[in-house]
Amino acid sequence: MAKQKKQPRPKAETPKGFRDYFGAEVAERDAMLAEIAEVYHRYGFDALESSAVETVEALGKYLPDVDRPNAGVFAWQEDDSDWVALRYDLTAPLARVYAQHRNDLPTPYRRYAMGPVWRNEKPGPGRFRQFYQCDADTVGAPTVAADAEIVAMLADTLEAVGIPRGDYIVRVNNRKVLNGVMEVAGILDPSDPEKYAHERGIVLRAIDKLDRLGPEGVRALLGKGRKDESGDYTDGAKLADKQADVVMGFMAAKRADGSATVARLRELVQGSSIGEQGVDELQTIEDLLMAQGYGPDRVEIDPSVVRGLGYYTGPVFEAELTFEIADEKGRPRQFGSVAGGGRYDDLVKRFTGQEVPATGISIGVDRLLAALRAKGRVTSRSTGPVLVTVMDRDRMADYQRMVAELRSAGFRAEVYLGNPKNFGNQLKYADKRDCPLAVIEGSDEKDRGVVILKDLALGKRLAAEITSNEKWKEQPAQQEIPRGDLVRVVSKYIGETEKNLSPAGS
Amino acid sequence: MAKQKKQPRPKAETPKGFRDYFGAEVAERDAMLAEIAEVYHRYGFDALESSAVETVEALGKYLPDVDRPNAGVFAWQEDDSDWVALRYDLTAPLARVYAQHRNDLPTPYRRYAMGPVWRNEKPGPGRFRQFYQCDADTVGAPTVAADAEIVAMLADTLEAVGIPRGDYIVRVNNRKVLNGVMEVAGILDPSDPEKYAHERGIVLRAIDKLDRLGPEGVRALLGKGRKDESGDYTDGAKLADKQADVVMGFMAAKRADGSATVARLRELVQGSSIGEQGVDELQTIEDLLMAQGYGPDRVEIDPSVVRGLGYYTGPVFEAELTFEIADEKGRPRQFGSVAGGGRYDDLVKRFTGQEVPATGISIGVDRLLAALRAKGRVTSRSTGPVLVTVMDRDRMADYQRMVAELRSAGFRAEVYLGNPKNFGNQLKYADKRDCPLAVIEGSDEKDRGVVILKDLALGKRLAAEITSNEKWKEQPAQQEIPRGDLVRVVSKYIGETEKNLSPAGS
Repeated sequence: MAKQKKQPRPKAETPKGFRDYFGAEVAERDAMLAEIAEVYHRYGFDALESSAVETVEALGKYLPDVDRPNAGVFAWQEDDSDWVALRYDLTAPLARVYAQHRNDLPTPYRRYAMGPVWRNEKPGPGRFRQFYQCDADTVGAPTVAADAEIVAMLADTLEAVGIPRGDYIVRVNNRKVLNGVMEVAGILDPSDPEKYAHERGIVLRAIDKLDRLGPEGVRALLGKGRKDESGDYTDGAKLADKQADVVMGFMAAKRADGSATVARLRELVQGSSIGEQGVDELQTIEDLLMAQGYGPDRVEIDPSVVRGLGYYTGPVFEAELTFEIADEKGRPRQFGSVAGGGRYDDLVKRFTGQEVPATGISIGVDRLLAALRAKGRVTSRSTGPVLVTVMDRDRMADYQRMVAELRSAGFRAEVYLGNPKNFGNQLKYADKRDCPLAVIEGSDEKDRGVVILKDLALGKRLAAEITSNEKWKEQPAQQEIPRGDLVRVVSKYIGETEKNLSPAGS
Repeated sequence: MAKQKKQPRPKAETPKGFRDYFGAEVAERDAMLAEIAEVYHRYGFDALESSAVETVEALGKYLPDVDRPNAGVFAWQEDDSDWVALRYDLTAPLARVYAQHRNDLPTPYRRYAMGPVWRNEKPGPGRFRQFYQCDADTVGAPTVAADAEIVAMLADTLEAVGIPRGDYIVRVNNRKVLNGVMEVAGILDPSDPEKYAHERGIVLRAIDKLDRLGPEGVRALLGKGRKDESGDYTDGAKLADKQADVVMGFMAAKRADGSATVARLRELVQGSSIGEQGVDELQTIEDLLMAQGYGPDRVEIDPSVVRGLGYYTGPVFEAELTFEIADEKGRPRQFGSVAGGGRYDDLVKRFTGQEVPATGISIGVDRLLAALRAKGRVTSRSTGPVLVTVMDRDRMADYQRMVAELRSAGFRAEVYLGNPKNFGNQLKYADKRDCPLAVIEGSDEKDRGVVILKDLALGKRLAAEITSNEKWKEQPAQQEIPRGDLVRVVSKYIGETEKNLSPAGS
């Protein structure tokens, strides 16, 4: 522990790479997650909240990032015993939970999980060491019908949170097809799976960068290597031209519809049994989705989707938002990926020795939320409360009665609790809280049985428009009403639809 | 980090003192927290989600438990720099957040926070090292109107989650009154606040144990000390009889109504200016609450409420559930406290040097949830999905279409994704998932355009009642319906009210 000597005042700061979330930020995320949970629940998935702390042994001490194993977690040693760590994702804990509770859980086990994860990585702009993940996985179902279900659910989820059809596409591929292509290209030998693993790793990561580098960039990485704009050189897989052609052909295999793409892929993997199996699986997924009406306006087979993670073993998916937003320089660009996943069959095996098939999806919570904000589609409103001002501090009970009435009627309302002496401060506070209305009742109003209602939203607009002081004095933004009409008149301003909305927007 | 040598299989276990939460446990807690958030929001409180990790410096390295300073947090050192720790409550982070962001936050700042906290303490039965807290605090409002507001909000919150009026009481007291009593008893010298601090600590903790020890036990602790049933001896405050009488009189000061109690307290603290100030504050709180209709059926002034924590400086509150539940031995006992809080004016000062008044409440999430479960008042239902069984694995698309139809109509539904060969396993799965209905469509039914609907809930009841095998064969719990009627008939079984309920119950 830190030293105990008399210290100067502590610094009021979050640790580096961490941040706080305020008001609407929290409410909007909660609202989105509640909508997602509703879809997952309807699909038969059950909630799971595993502990934030896991033993390092159970986590496996590796992040799901092939480039940087053995790093990136927050870990510490319990009093002379186990090392424990904060979870870095929701998949490793799922494997532990399933292995631990498998006798009590149904098989297949469909679960969803939402919550923070922690990464001990270098923080950067928009890159924090604590962030939310939102996962759904099916454990114990070998059939690709489970993968098809996840794909359909992902499409439904995006629409449920407010991304309309046409603004997103879920792309599907299969790692087995890629493996078949690698076999045909001569960089996978089924009788010796470890051979060429280094080359395949480079190929996988190169394909994953197709969006950023373009076909030429990928081609360079398949060959000798690539020099980027900064002059840095990345070593390539050193494939011969003919080998590279096979891989490039795979990436360009997408056709007008799923069946045509599948047919083209079947040609490419001819002679590879793993490749043919992968193509069959893609065909089955395509058939299942089409039968339920998930056509090319929502789902497509796209051979360029490979997902960077090493642990996928079959179908892989990626959801992309296809509308444009302005980048930091104002140029339009596609929003890009907001969710991804696939089939992984080895995670539970670490614990039990038995292979347990699993498939799942992870939504990038912050990215999806940013997309909804960019499109003006967040469902939670951050309306400030109606502010009952304090003109006479001895009549606090009168003001409290007013807010009690307003709250009983379902409105968000509060009495000013700061020092009431300076009335201007009360209005400044109302401005900071984004209050739609202020209620004023001085002793004169009290005697006459009225209150003054000040429309702060209108006042703000008028203040922006009106330059002449004279006009401002007419104060069109406030009116006197009978005290007994308070709730009725407030409801005219605020409206029935808004008043009962909960902070989570549900 | 742990050693890297080849290891045996990792153990699939949560770290000691941690646990996982499944399905309904998660959904029920989420539903309750959403209801609480709605009340807080209506009172003008804004959400805050601070980071789970804080610098040890900012946390202050102490738990809010006078008996055990400097212990109980999970802490580790960041690469040769700061020590950081998991937050142990939501109050210390609030102080840090307010000090850090005070120029951007409104004053007063009303905030609520809900989330896990971590304690590095010895786990025990029902006592975990990660648990939820749910707090609401007002920072920057010196007026006791802020305290009265918190008390009213707490009463509203308990009713909103499902504790009816009459089943709870919010008790209010004021530490200043207790200090006045201490002054009268001669164990507080306003000119030398540190004098008798040891004795006052014992008195405070003794009063806090009134429920458990009874008046005699407390009296013993005010005097020489007390031997408990196990023979262990606890040292007392060593007050003279006359001094102890004053303190005992304080605890017995409760009268039939708030005004009478306040009057009695005023007699007891006569001559102590801090005591008189405390009595005035209690009177103001009582008046404000009565003016809003929060009478003795919801709120009462109770001098025996002191709250153990050292940091309270004024009003203190405690919400108690007054209905009885059976204890582990089947004996009836009162449910007890589910929330508590009070005014604390020094927490922000640590950072800024300036005293910032604050008052707040913390709800014991697990205890309140246990109370709602004990009374059958949890709002989230854990209905299993409608299970579409797989009779013919080549017709998976048909079954997927059925669940798609059911989901579109708002029902929770899934197709069986395990190995379909053994139909008994499908029904066992449905039983484990608590499925209300199973849908069966073999090739014969397919040809005839019908499906079989099996009422699993009824089947369960019948199986429990029926002993004769003959009767069971009549299968009254299943019926054949036209395929086209699936959604219509399912909705008869499941009902309109249930189908659209989200997992969070909102």
